Amino acid sequence: MNDDMNKNQIEIFDTTLRDGAQGEGISFSARDKLAVTEALDELGIMWIEAGNPGSNPKDADFFKQAKKLRLKNARLCAFGSTRKKGTAARDDKQLAELLSAETETVVIFGKTSALHVTEVLRASLDENLDMITETIDFLRSEGRIVFFDAEHFFDGLVQNAGYALKSVNTAVQADAARIILCDTNGGSFPSAIAGGVLKAAGVIQKHDAPPPIGIHAHNDSGLAIACSIAALEAGCAQVQGTLLGFGERCGNTCLAALIPSLELKMGLRCLPDGNLEHLTSVSRRVAEIANCVLSDDMPYIGDHAFSHKAGMHADAILKIRSSFEHINPSSVGNGRRFLMSEQGGRAAVAERVREFSVGIDKNHPAIDTLLIRLKELEAEGWAFEGADASFEILVYKELGLYKNFFDVIAFRVQSEYPAGELLECCHAWVKVLVNGQYEMAAAEGDGPVNALDRALRRGLLRFYPELAKMRLTDYKVRVINGKDATAAKVRVLIESSNGASSWTTVGVSADVIAASCLALVDSIAYNLKRVAGQPDATAPCLC
Amino acid sequence: MNDDMNKNQIEIFDTTLRDGAQGEGISFSARDKLAVTEALDELGIMWIEAGNPGSNPKDADFFKQAKKLRLKNARLCAFGSTRKKGTAARDDKQLAELLSAETETVVIFGKTSALHVTEVLRASLDENLDMITETIDFLRSEGRIVFFDAEHFFDGLVQNAGYALKSVNTAVQADAARIILCDTNGGSFPSAIAGGVLKAAGVIQKHDAPPPIGIHAHNDSGLAIACSIAALEAGCAQVQGTLLGFGERCGNTCLAALIPSLELKMGLRCLPDGNLEHLTSVSRRVAEIANCVLSDDMPYIGDHAFSHKAGMHADAILKIRSSFEHINPSSVGNGRRFLMSEQGGRAAVAERVREFSVGIDKNHPAIDTLLIRLKELEAEGWAFEGADASFEILVYKELGLYKNFFDVIAFRVQSEYPAGELLECCHAWVKVLVNGQYEMAAAEGDGPVNALDRALRRGLLRFYPELAKMRLTDYKVRVINGKDATAAKVRVLIESSNGASSWTTVGVSADVIAASCLALVDSIAYNLKRVAGQPDATAPCLC
Repeated sequence: MNDDMNKNQIEIFDTTLRDGAQGEGISFSARDKLAVTEALDELGIMWIEAGNPGSNPKDADFFKQAKKLRLKNARLCAFGSTRKKGTAARDDKQLAELLSAETETVVIFGKTSALHVTEVLRASLDENLDMITETIDFLRSEGRIVFFDAEHFFDGLVQNAGYALKSVNTAVQADAARIILCDTNGGSFPSAIAGGVLKAAGVIQKHDAPPPIGIHAHNDSGLAIACSIAALEAGCAQVQGTLLGFGERCGNTCLAALIPSLELKMGLRCLPDGNLEHLTSVSRRVAEIANCVLSDDMPYIGDHAFSHKAGMHADAILKIRSSFEHINPSSVGNGRRFLMSEQGGRAAVAERVREFSVGIDKNHPAIDTLLIRLKELEAEGWAFEGADASFEILVYKELGLYKNFFDVIAFRVQSEYPAGELLECCHAWVKVLVNGQYEMAAAEGDGPVNALDRALRRGLLRFYPELAKMRLTDYKVRVINGKDATAAKVRVLIESSNGASSWTTVGVSADVIAASCLALVDSIAYNLKRVAGQPDATAPCLC
Repeated sequence: MNDDMNKNQIEIFDTTLRDGAQGEGISFSARDKLAVTEALDELGIMWIEAGNPGSNPKDADFFKQAKKLRLKNARLCAFGSTRKKGTAARDDKQLAELLSAETETVVIFGKTSALHVTEVLRASLDENLDMITETIDFLRSEGRIVFFDAEHFFDGLVQNAGYALKSVNTAVQADAARIILCDTNGGSFPSAIAGGVLKAAGVIQKHDAPPPIGIHAHNDSGLAIACSIAALEAGCAQVQGTLLGFGERCGNTCLAALIPSLELKMGLRCLPDGNLEHLTSVSRRVAEIANCVLSDDMPYIGDHAFSHKAGMHADAILKIRSSFEHINPSSVGNGRRFLMSEQGGRAAVAERVREFSVGIDKNHPAIDTLLIRLKELEAEGWAFEGADASFEILVYKELGLYKNFFDVIAFRVQSEYPAGELLECCHAWVKVLVNGQYEMAAAEGDGPVNALDRALRRGLLRFYPELAKMRLTDYKVRVINGKDATAAKVRVLIESSNGASSWTTVGVSADVIAASCLALVDSIAYNLKRVAGQPDATAPCLC
């Protein structure tokens, strides 16, 4: 990397799994966290703040499992705080738990607002400085690289500038590797952020090897992105945020909305070359994992970000692309809406089909048939963004390459409270047809979908013993149109695993049970298809 | 109004009904438009751009009806464009329709980007200037005040600065009453906006009576609010936007997120004194009219804008309000919320209980009992952060103040595919007990929860006719522990409404149907409790 590239390189620091998880309605299982980590790594995010092991035991579990991940780009950090007042760092339980995450880099936040020190923490101003020094010293003595989050820095600067800067200086003296200036309450203006960064830089750069400065903004005034840009212009080298803007109150800086501006408009480097094109798909994947609906009007990655309703605009865009578009949508992996089926969508679908190596190139006429079918399904509420296995099955079906392993002829699922004398609350029966043979099976379960899943696999096991190894690992339900409430359609996503790998399928129906059944059937079919080996387009059709 | 007040007065110009209506999924009837106009007027918006009668016949109808409105603060404008190329203004049909709206003020947009003139409009640069002059002359001769929207001004400035400024100068020479600089593609940075405003001001202010300048930004880079602030700092006196950020692609400047910053942080006057406190309620009313769900994380007016999940934050906020809040929520008519979560502490729970006015202060021993119960429920997967109504019911139950309106004795829900001869796929029966009387009811539905909901309310309607007004408005399912997949517990959130207000309840179970039933029961109980009136802690227990 030459000097020029270095100068333009920005460190992207994602805290979806820590600060983002503080957002209302956001809740990640350890497995969700692993999936988000992999998605962020694939996108090329440099730093991932993945949890607060001192305050959340689930996070400690995550860090243990995360060691098995093979990350290409990202480095994980654990998050904690300066030691408790009146306690030696070495005896601080929270710091011990921070260390037990065994990440090379740890992030600690410390107070830099005098008001917060005296009124909230109720410590003396000097003790807070000692807490900063001793915590960093201790963590460094344990071999950690330490990033220092200067909590409430910008508010602190207004209330007591001398103390805010002294706190930052203390962290630099203790050899913190980054100083991150936090607008914790999210109320600062970009001009105040720029001024604050310059003041902090004045103190930090007096040191021999000054650490890079980061910015951590919140969106309480709708200005998080502008504040982050102002901070970078004032000399910050790291920007913190959450990919989709998740976070307490109004959220953190939305990285998906910021990164394209930095790369395409400011000439800064944030992601590895070529990765910006994955921004839309990775963002939508993370939204699926978080079970959140992405706002259609999200800058760059939203469904409507490049859609055109006014006929005049649509007409102009056909004359010159830039007439009503500030960037080329494909540069962020998004598409122009009114042309989706013919242009953006087509290339993306062809690319995905190519991945299955079925010998179909992008000019094959089957791609057109597939696009029509996809549009129909999307109009009915299907979404294949987070359901690769269902998409693959759909492609095979549309190309006439699908081998049918079984049919579900009929099923019934019953939930009954209180339970009867002979049956538990939930029970199901199912009738399947395999190679001309009918089989019926029944099962009880912990819920209606569990009962159905058990009955279905029990019915198929005689024909396909390999299903014994398969299990369902995650189950998500999303209401597609909330306005009709319980009569609305639901989309069910099911993740399954055979121990070695996992895959996701989707089902859509007005009935959560019927939608679950569709996703279960795809999941089992996908497993059988993989065990049997894939036909390719040069082989005769097996249907 | 003295000089100082004048200097600080900003003109707020709302285009929800024109540019906002261009947003995907936004559609207003003439009646909706009247209701939005009244809401904006009540808030104290100065200008309302209410439609484009030349391109939309429904808008012409609206302007006719709008004359009957008694507006206190707002003035209506109709929107159109410069005359067609090659047509005299007097013969231009679109301009005739613009006049027929009979508003005192009209807004016309004209091209200021040379590229757009030659490549999209396909006119000569001179003809476009003539179109601007003649259109303004004509409209003024018809007695109108004319605002000029300089379309693509900032992009035009980059491509051909001389022409962009010449176009603006032409509109000033023709006596346009306002010059509004538009970032039509929404891609400009705040610094470019500020620079552009200064350049335009340089040209405009050479005239004897220079018209005020306005800014019209879009949010394609997530910077619309920052761009608007930058423009005001550079000397603009009018800011255009839409109350809730509606608009093409990523939307327009969200006025509800901008106005509080201008009033509370920049000391500017936007609304009549005291009206800022109505911002949240008016915004939510407009969202209702537009049939849109407001994002919970909207700055200032969102449901989550002042909510606190981390126990530490909640604790700090009770010590000093400003510790984790950038403004006082009541100044914009919003409220602080403490979320019940693993991290939420004693203080937060006591604060919530106090809100119900049940006469229990934070030192009451019942708070401890309640905390223990909350922790037990949270360990079982319950979460009350998004379910205020269930939380309130829980508090009443734990305090021994809960009046039991009904019991569900038994229910059965069945999903069956294919459907039987006599029954649809999903059907349910339920047996309830009310005041010692049993009642049984059955219903079919579009899904199992819909069938159960119908059967349950059918069974209760004889006792509680007020339930006829209640309806479910949203339904969400979340798997709590993905590891066990379909055998895992699910958390169901149900939002209900009686037309006037809405509330959310929660249910948890391994069975999605049982979880839904718990949330349904709470939802109905909460409605009945509100209709019946709340007992307070000083009254004897009613259970």
